Amino acid sequence: MRNIQIILGYQGSSYHGWQRQKNAITVQQKVEEALKEVTGQQLEIIGASRTDSGVHANGQSANFLTHSKIPVDKIPYAINSKLPRDIRVYQALERPMDFHSRYHSTGKKYTYHVINNAFGSALDFNRAWHVQKALNIEHMIKANQHFIGTHDFAAFRSTGSSVKTSERTIYASKLWQREEKLILEIKGNGFLYNMVRIIMGTLIEVGMGKISHKDIPAIIQSRERDRAGITAPAHGLYLEKVYYENP
Amino acid sequence: MRNIQIILGYQGSSYHGWQRQKNAITVQQKVEEALKEVTGQQLEIIGASRTDSGVHANGQSANFLTHSKIPVDKIPYAINSKLPRDIRVYQALERPMDFHSRYHSTGKKYTYHVINNAFGSALDFNRAWHVQKALNIEHMIKANQHFIGTHDFAAFRSTGSSVKTSERTIYASKLWQREEKLILEIKGNGFLYNMVRIIMGTLIEVGMGKISHKDIPAIIQSRERDRAGITAPAHGLYLEKVYYENP
Repeated sequence: MRNIQIILGYQGSSYHGWQRQKNAITVQQKVEEALKEVTGQQLEIIGASRTDSGVHANGQSANFLTHSKIPVDKIPYAINSKLPRDIRVYQALERPMDFHSRYHSTGKKYTYHVINNAFGSALDFNRAWHVQKALNIEHMIKANQHFIGTHDFAAFRSTGSSVKTSERTIYASKLWQREEKLILEIKGNGFLYNMVRIIMGTLIEVGMGKISHKDIPAIIQSRERDRAGITAPAHGLYLEKVYYENP
Repeated sequence: MRNIQIILGYQGSSYHGWQRQKNAITVQQKVEEALKEVTGQQLEIIGASRTDSGVHANGQSANFLTHSKIPVDKIPYAINSKLPRDIRVYQALERPMDFHSRYHSTGKKYTYHVINNAFGSALDFNRAWHVQKALNIEHMIKANQHFIGTHDFAAFRSTGSSVKTSERTIYASKLWQREEKLILEIKGNGFLYNMVRIIMGTLIEVGMGKISHKDIPAIIQSRERDRAGITAPAHGLYLEKVYYENP
């Protein structure tokens, strides 16, 4: 038996998220179907992150156990030949038998993309959140600083998650503007359900002047979801990288 | 009567090109349908460039005559509210009655996007040409220099076009690499049918060592389509801008 980790990307718009569902096509299902064609076995693949419907990935990580003897460097070619072209495996690695792509991840990096102009962008319509109103970027950058560090992020979590603690550490969070595009890049040891999207929604409300950037520490401290901003839509979010102790 | 110019973008993947067809959905048709909803009239819209199926646009230009009294700055909002989100009107301008978006254009700018790596990119699958083989970028940049200037580009034209002369002037052509992406940006007074795609295909063959960069002048001089490289696929091409004497 071998434990294979794969790094993959996908366009979220065509799938109902990562996790296998009964009546909807998901990325997990597509990868498992491709693996069945390649190995002849019905395998279960474990994803590091259960990305929601519409969320994109450039660096999702997943693993599966297999008896297949296919050389590890040939695995991406084999799986890709059976996958739709908006899902691509970029790398495969042989891991110890106890490696678990979700439990053993030590952190993740996400980006969130916003188009800030009058009419949006035809080519980014399902890849960035279109925000029409003018934004105060300086205030947004100041607000964003407050998320860095170890905090209880209960105010930045959607209900429906069952994790025990809502304390998380944000190692780095950077917001920048490139022409009409705003990009947030955020790296942490873990993220609560919808946490990046609520942080982004809150930053946009800061940019619009609805929330003061000075109030972010108090909002975090309150642990009250109502005090934070809206949940930014799924289609602006990208899972960029999953970290492990032994990369 | 008023003559309105619009600047628009679209994702080419969902449409059978710009020009209205009998049994396929095109961008022109979608814009004309939206205009009918906005103005109540069945108008004909003239596009500066008849982009092929799969070709994207960030700056297509088009014009139409209308009796509608809608203020020019409200036109993009009105049309966009009736368009699918992968077609967006970015600007509307009032033009003299004799303005013709195609006949009066003085030049165009295109970009062509290539992904050069082993497995392609899930998020660029219908937005860039995936080239697997290693490329000699230096040779490609040298080859690209030869296209600049006024030349007879008969060797870089697909059959099926009825234009009288195949002489065109390339004002600027720049090729650069950004991580695994290669981008060609080319600006000229006009382009023959498939000219940018054949230039790109030729540059890729130079990068692969199939064509020497030193042979480009001779290939141009030959006026023989067979001597140039393959036609790069449509889905890597972007119409970026259409130029006019009075911008």
